[in-house]
Amino acid sequence: MTRSDDAQWMARALSLGARGLGQVWPNPAVGCIVVKDQRVVGRGWTQPGGRPHAEAIALAQAGEAARGATAYVTLEPCAHHGKTPPCADALVTAGVARVVTALEDPDPRTAGQGIARLSAAGIFCETNVLPDAARRAHAGFLSRVERGRPLLTLKLASSFDGRIATASGESKWITGPAARHAVQGLRASHDAVLVGAGTARADDPALTLRGYGERRSPVRVIISRRLDLPTESQLARTARNVPLWLCHGPDAPDDRRVAWAKAGADLIEVPLGQDRHPDPAAMLQLLGARGLTRVLCEGGGMLAASLIVADLPDQLVGFTAGLALGAEGQPAIGPLGLAALSEARRYVLEGTCKIGPDLMAVWDRRR
Amino acid sequence: MTRSDDAQWMARALSLGARGLGQVWPNPAVGCIVVKDQRVVGRGWTQPGGRPHAEAIALAQAGEAARGATAYVTLEPCAHHGKTPPCADALVTAGVARVVTALEDPDPRTAGQGIARLSAAGIFCETNVLPDAARRAHAGFLSRVERGRPLLTLKLASSFDGRIATASGESKWITGPAARHAVQGLRASHDAVLVGAGTARADDPALTLRGYGERRSPVRVIISRRLDLPTESQLARTARNVPLWLCHGPDAPDDRRVAWAKAGADLIEVPLGQDRHPDPAAMLQLLGARGLTRVLCEGGGMLAASLIVADLPDQLVGFTAGLALGAEGQPAIGPLGLAALSEARRYVLEGTCKIGPDLMAVWDRRR
Repeated sequence: MTRSDDAQWMARALSLGARGLGQVWPNPAVGCIVVKDQRVVGRGWTQPGGRPHAEAIALAQAGEAARGATAYVTLEPCAHHGKTPPCADALVTAGVARVVTALEDPDPRTAGQGIARLSAAGIFCETNVLPDAARRAHAGFLSRVERGRPLLTLKLASSFDGRIATASGESKWITGPAARHAVQGLRASHDAVLVGAGTARADDPALTLRGYGERRSPVRVIISRRLDLPTESQLARTARNVPLWLCHGPDAPDDRRVAWAKAGADLIEVPLGQDRHPDPAAMLQLLGARGLTRVLCEGGGMLAASLIVADLPDQLVGFTAGLALGAEGQPAIGPLGLAALSEARRYVLEGTCKIGPDLMAVWDRRR
Repeated sequence: MTRSDDAQWMARALSLGARGLGQVWPNPAVGCIVVKDQRVVGRGWTQPGGRPHAEAIALAQAGEAARGATAYVTLEPCAHHGKTPPCADALVTAGVARVVTALEDPDPRTAGQGIARLSAAGIFCETNVLPDAARRAHAGFLSRVERGRPLLTLKLASSFDGRIATASGESKWITGPAARHAVQGLRASHDAVLVGAGTARADDPALTLRGYGERRSPVRVIISRRLDLPTESQLARTARNVPLWLCHGPDAPDDRRVAWAKAGADLIEVPLGQDRHPDPAAMLQLLGARGLTRVLCEGGGMLAASLIVADLPDQLVGFTAGLALGAEGQPAIGPLGLAALSEARRYVLEGTCKIGPDLMAVWDRRR
């Protein structure tokens, strides 16, 4: 088995693992392939809710064929007893001869101990195969473990002069159906969707997943300092079916807290920042503590600005339509208070594609 | 000789012809290849200033070898006596056996008569080879002949939230050196560069061509209703070396007209539109009457807006940098006064490329 064979199998395990993105938090979306004599005898990925783990599924599928096989796992197999027995032990019991991993699990309960357990059992271990791709694939999980907060993707859908609505607030539709479907794809691969109170009030959005069958919708997170959101709204009506988390300030009135709790929302109190708004960095830490690994912010302009000012977005996904709305249109990003151009963070262009009549561009923060 | 051979030679003639873009106005930038026994025996393109024509150069290079050869010409050879004898006659005299063209010349002095002359002389003519590519290549010339005005390209270089400067006016540098060099390439392929008075005052630009060796700079066209531009400026200092055309309103004071004429500028009086500014459509007609076929507008935001309101840009070239400047930054496009989203013209994404750290996107108006 050459290193390049290993990389090819690992790439397949990574693409299997990606199926779990947005579905498996607080766990990582792991992929696993069991290969024997150059044939795949088992494949698995972390299941919705985070269990069973990828390895358990792939090994069950392989059955007796796992004996003497090679298992490709996109993250170091876990070594601790959680709600499931350690995957490292499962691999030993199944009798695999060799385990290839892409990345060490930074979770302190594993962090090298998974590999140690396997090696101790006489299994040949190969680590660091396609580590860069794995770091991208597990970016949300790594962010939660290493920074205590989820990965933050900021979506911007605007005219080519950076406007998200006309002066009168008309925003349907700037981008076309293909771009809007791609936004659903972004929702599907994130644990939560985040919008500001202004957007929630103006658009009365449901923020649920559409066009993805039975796949579960992301958690809806709304920031509203005083919880002054209408309880006659799509968000309120759907709060018992799809999680709705409201991030509010310490000064949110009790009656509003009670009303929203009754409607089925989870309330998260966030300390205020210097600008007297819920502090976005503190909020992300609280979301991380609740297990979120990937959050997609869909606006509006004021929230986008406060996230950028706090230097929080890890990735920007821009959908640009081929029209101009002019300076009186509503800006995609509110005021940033930059004193000089050099203060602005530079994002790195990751890629572009044509999507229907629109242009999609992905920019990375590069930690 | 198959049709696909013809297309391949024509593609080469088109890329030769493109060398003349921005250099040959009021004439079209034609390319010509003379092919005999599958070998190129002569090649030519319209020379700076518009003469000699492509055919004359290619035939001179071919000499006796032109006899019995095939000439590929990207536009129907001219049939009228202008400052040079008709190219159709030159092809007959040279004894070519066959002439392949991409497009009929819409100039009424030719319009089919070039081909008629060749056919009458017993030359076999094949027309309409790669007509779409030729229409793109000759878009500026066609625009001048068919609409009386030059093709208008609007360049926008902005942050990804559509800002061309910070609130304090800082704009150096939003995009990187590669994008700035690409802007020079745009200048090189246009007959004229157009900016508004605000940009001319704020940036004191020279608007000349840099990094393109001896290639001549485009005409600089500035719109200033009352000619209240500083005569202590790069534009004024260079007015005797590179043409400077000032488009002003009927109410421009005489002393300003005299001062600028003395400095070496050409003055073009443009009627005012309903907004009491020089009417951009009327201005383009006047520029077309002076022979311009391709004009590149480089801003600022107010001029860009007035061009878009008048539905004049044929192509938008956007350079987007990976940073946000926020809502207080200066908008790439000023107010448009749209009553509804549906009023905005939709441009079609022609292509994108990564250029240094920036994103370049080309949008087409599609007549």
